[in-house]
Amino acid sequence: MSLSAKVCANTAVREATPGLMAALAERFVERFSTARAVREQHGRDESAYVDAPLPQGVVFARSTADIVDTVRLVGAHEVPLIPYGAGSSVEGHLLAVQGGISLDLSQMDRILAIHPEDMTVTVQPGVTRSQLDEALKGSGLFFPIDPGADASLGGMCATGASGTNAVRYGTMKENVLALEVVTAHGEVIRTGTRARKSSAGYDLTHLMVGSEGTLGIISEATLRLHPVPESISAAVCSFGSLDQAVNTAIQVIQCAIPVARIELVDANTVRMVNVHSKLALPEAPMLLMEFHGSASGVQEQAEAVQAIAKEWGGQAFQWATQAEDRRRLWTARHHAYFAAIQSHPGCRAISTDTCVPISRLAECLLESTAEVNATGLPYFLVGHVGDGNFHFGYLVDPEDSRQWAQAESLNDRLVARAIRLGGTCTGEHGIGLHKQGYLLDEAGEGSVAMMRAIKRTLDPHNILNPGKIFAFD
Amino acid sequence: MSLSAKVCANTAVREATPGLMAALAERFVERFSTARAVREQHGRDESAYVDAPLPQGVVFARSTADIVDTVRLVGAHEVPLIPYGAGSSVEGHLLAVQGGISLDLSQMDRILAIHPEDMTVTVQPGVTRSQLDEALKGSGLFFPIDPGADASLGGMCATGASGTNAVRYGTMKENVLALEVVTAHGEVIRTGTRARKSSAGYDLTHLMVGSEGTLGIISEATLRLHPVPESISAAVCSFGSLDQAVNTAIQVIQCAIPVARIELVDANTVRMVNVHSKLALPEAPMLLMEFHGSASGVQEQAEAVQAIAKEWGGQAFQWATQAEDRRRLWTARHHAYFAAIQSHPGCRAISTDTCVPISRLAECLLESTAEVNATGLPYFLVGHVGDGNFHFGYLVDPEDSRQWAQAESLNDRLVARAIRLGGTCTGEHGIGLHKQGYLLDEAGEGSVAMMRAIKRTLDPHNILNPGKIFAFD
Repeated sequence: MSLSAKVCANTAVREATPGLMAALAERFVERFSTARAVREQHGRDESAYVDAPLPQGVVFARSTADIVDTVRLVGAHEVPLIPYGAGSSVEGHLLAVQGGISLDLSQMDRILAIHPEDMTVTVQPGVTRSQLDEALKGSGLFFPIDPGADASLGGMCATGASGTNAVRYGTMKENVLALEVVTAHGEVIRTGTRARKSSAGYDLTHLMVGSEGTLGIISEATLRLHPVPESISAAVCSFGSLDQAVNTAIQVIQCAIPVARIELVDANTVRMVNVHSKLALPEAPMLLMEFHGSASGVQEQAEAVQAIAKEWGGQAFQWATQAEDRRRLWTARHHAYFAAIQSHPGCRAISTDTCVPISRLAECLLESTAEVNATGLPYFLVGHVGDGNFHFGYLVDPEDSRQWAQAESLNDRLVARAIRLGGTCTGEHGIGLHKQGYLLDEAGEGSVAMMRAIKRTLDPHNILNPGKIFAFD
Repeated sequence: MSLSAKVCANTAVREATPGLMAALAERFVERFSTARAVREQHGRDESAYVDAPLPQGVVFARSTADIVDTVRLVGAHEVPLIPYGAGSSVEGHLLAVQGGISLDLSQMDRILAIHPEDMTVTVQPGVTRSQLDEALKGSGLFFPIDPGADASLGGMCATGASGTNAVRYGTMKENVLALEVVTAHGEVIRTGTRARKSSAGYDLTHLMVGSEGTLGIISEATLRLHPVPESISAAVCSFGSLDQAVNTAIQVIQCAIPVARIELVDANTVRMVNVHSKLALPEAPMLLMEFHGSASGVQEQAEAVQAIAKEWGGQAFQWATQAEDRRRLWTARHHAYFAAIQSHPGCRAISTDTCVPISRLAECLLESTAEVNATGLPYFLVGHVGDGNFHFGYLVDPEDSRQWAQAESLNDRLVARAIRLGGTCTGEHGIGLHKQGYLLDEAGEGSVAMMRAIKRTLDPHNILNPGKIFAFD
C-alpha cells in the first residue's frame, strides 16, 4: 500500500450534495468550477502524495465576503473546505482526503496598505512573496521570510513557514502582527492590531499561524517589514567534509554572529544544482551565506565567519556582492528541490524537516546522512543550519514500494533521533498528512488532545481542512 | 461604587467546602495556610483594587506534582485556583474575585538547566528575573525581558510581559521556547521543544503565554537567552518639550537604529524619581537610552541618535558607561511607580498601558497628556516609546470617588484613542480585571467569543483564575 493510500484509508469522503453544488454555482457562477483539469490542479501539491480524491469543485474567492459565503454554504452541508493558496505545500495540506470543495484564494491578491512609517504591510492571502517583493521595491523595506517556493502569504501564515532568512529575522510567527480570519461559523474576526506588541487576551494570531487551515481561513494578514540593510554581501565556502561545514555553522551561531543566511548544501546536491541551474560551484559540501548590516558591520561579520571556516578547513570565500549574482545563487539554492527531481525523472521527493538545538545539529545530521548513504537511496540534502533545521529529500520511484518503505523508515529514525535530541519533527513544513504520528511522538497525547479540543470547539463539524495535523475523533 | 466593587459585583464566590480544606491540609500539611496574614498577602497585588475577597487558603507548591494534586483537589470541588508568582501584577490578576485557593509558586525556584551552547534556559515558574540574572553571571548570556518589577518568570509568561528591552529583544512571546503546563484536568503537557523553531501543530506555547493563568498553570518554562553585548552604553537626553522627546524616539525607530532601550520619562515624573532615588536628573522631558553591540556599532548607533535628538532640540547626552552608573539609572527608572506613590502618600496608581503604531505615538501621547493636565489629577508618565507603548499612572485617593471617576474616564478616552489609531489597550500588563470592556472594544465580540470558547473547552468548570480577561458565561 502506498503512503498516500495509507493516509486516506481511514477517512470517509463526505460528498457534496447536488444541492450544495447548485448553490455554489449560483453564488459564484464562473468562479465555481467542476472541470476535471481545475480539480486536478487543486487536488495535488508538491508532496509525495498522488492518489488522494480530488476536490469536487473549486471556488475562486475575490473577497472576504466570498469566503464567508462559501464557509456558510459548505458548513450547512457539513462538507469539507480546503483553502488553496499557491499549491506549494510539501505535506499534503491541500489534498481533499475527505472530499469537499477547494477554496482558491489566489485572486485575493491585493496589497491593501503599506505603512512604511510603521514598517507594516497588510495583504490579502493570495499575494505571493515575489509580488510583495516587487511592491516594496524602492520603499527601503523588505519582507524577510523566504521559504524558497513563491508561496502565497496566506499559505505561509497557515503553515508557519520560514526559510533561509529565519536565522536573523525569525519565522512567520515573529513576523505576523495580526490576521483577519473567517471562522468555521462564517464569522469574520480580527486577531490583533498594528501595534508592535500586545497582551490583550489570548494570542489568536499565533493560534492561527501554523494551524494549516484547520481553525479558520485567513482572509487578510498584517506583517512586519524590515529595513533593507545598507550593505548586503553573499558568499559561498566549500569544505572537505560535511562535518566541517556543519561545525562551522554551529560555531557561527554559538558566537552569535548575526548572519542573515547560513545554508548547507551537500556535495551530491551541489552537483544536481550545477546541472539544473548551469552553475559551476565546486562539488563539495558548501555553506551559502549572506551578511546584512552597515558596510563595516558586514565586513566584521564576514571576517569573523571566515576565521571560523578556516579553522574547520574551509576554502576561501567566493563572494557575490552584486544583486544579480546573489539572485542567481539563491535561486539556484531554492531550486535544489527541482534540481533533484530533474536528476531522477519520474521520482517523487519525500522531504524531511527536523530541527534540533544547534548543539545537537552535527550529531543529528551526520548520523542521519550515514544512515541514508547506507541504503543507497538517492537524495538531496539542504539545511537552514543556523536554525538547526535541515531537509533530506529522499527520491523515490512512486511505483517502488521497497523504496517508499526505505524512505519512511529513514524518516522515522531521523525524527526519533531529532526528538531524542530535544528537537522537532517539523521546523517549517507543518504536520499535514504525513507527520501526524510524529506529532504524537513529539508533543505527547496530552498536547494533541488539547489541540483536538480546540479544533472541535472552533469547528465542531470538522469542515475546515479535515484530516490534517491529527485525527478529529 | 469603587472600581473594584464594580468588578466583583457580578461574580459569585465559590466557597471551598470543609472537605476540600481538610483534603488540602492533609496533602500539604504546613504548606497549606489559612492564616489571615498569608491570605491577605496573596489577595492583593500592585493594582488599584483593594476590596476583593481574600483567597480561602494558600498552597505553597514545590513541584509539578504539587500543582497537579492541587488542581485535581480543587477541580473535584469546582473551586477557583489562582496561581501566584511574585505578586507584581498591576491588573488584579491575583485577586480571588470568586474566592478559592491561591497557589503560590514562589518555592518552585530552581533553574533546571542552562544550555549556553544553545542559548536556552529551563526554569521553574517561581524563579525571579533577578535570580536568573544572578545565575547567568559569567556565562556571557542574559535574559533580556525586564518589566521593572522583580517578577517571577512564570508570571511573566502568563502575562505576556515585556518592558524596557523589548524594542530590541522582543517580548515574552518572542523569548519563550516551550512550556510545561498543568491543565485544568490536572494533566501535564509540554508545548514545545528546545528547537529554535517548529511548525508542529497548534502553537500551544503562544496560547499559554498571556493567558493569565486561565488556561493552565505554567510549571516549567524554556526561555531564549541572548549574548551579553561586547559593548553597552547608556545615556540620558533632556528636551525642552514632551513633543520633542517623543518625536526623537519615533525617528530613531523609523531610521531602524537598533537601540536596546529607549524610554520616555516626563518632567513631572523625573522630579518624583529624583526625590525617590536621590538623583539630580534635569527636571525636563527625558529619553533614557541604552545601546548594545560591538564597540564601533554602539558608537555608530549613539552618533545617529544624537544627531536626531539634536534636530529636535535635545541637550547633549549624559553618558553612563560604567555598569554601576547604568544600574542606578535603570533602577531609578524602574522605581518611577514607587516614586510616584511615595509622592502622594495613601494614593493608589491606576496604570494605563496603551500601545500604538509608532507613527501615531506623538498624536496619542500628546493628546492624552493634554487631557490629563486639564483635569489637574496627579500622574506619572513613562513609556517604552520605541514600541509605541506608554503608561500613565493616575494617582487617586481610593476614598475619593470623583478622582476614581476622573481616572476611569481618562483611561476610557485614552484607550478609545489608541484603538482608533490602530493600537491596543494593553501592550504588556494584560487584561486582568479592569480592561475586559476594552478587550471587547479592541478585539470585537467574535474574537472574544473565540477566546471564551477555548476557555470553556479547556477549563469547563472555570477553575483556573476565573473572572479574568472576559466573562465565562
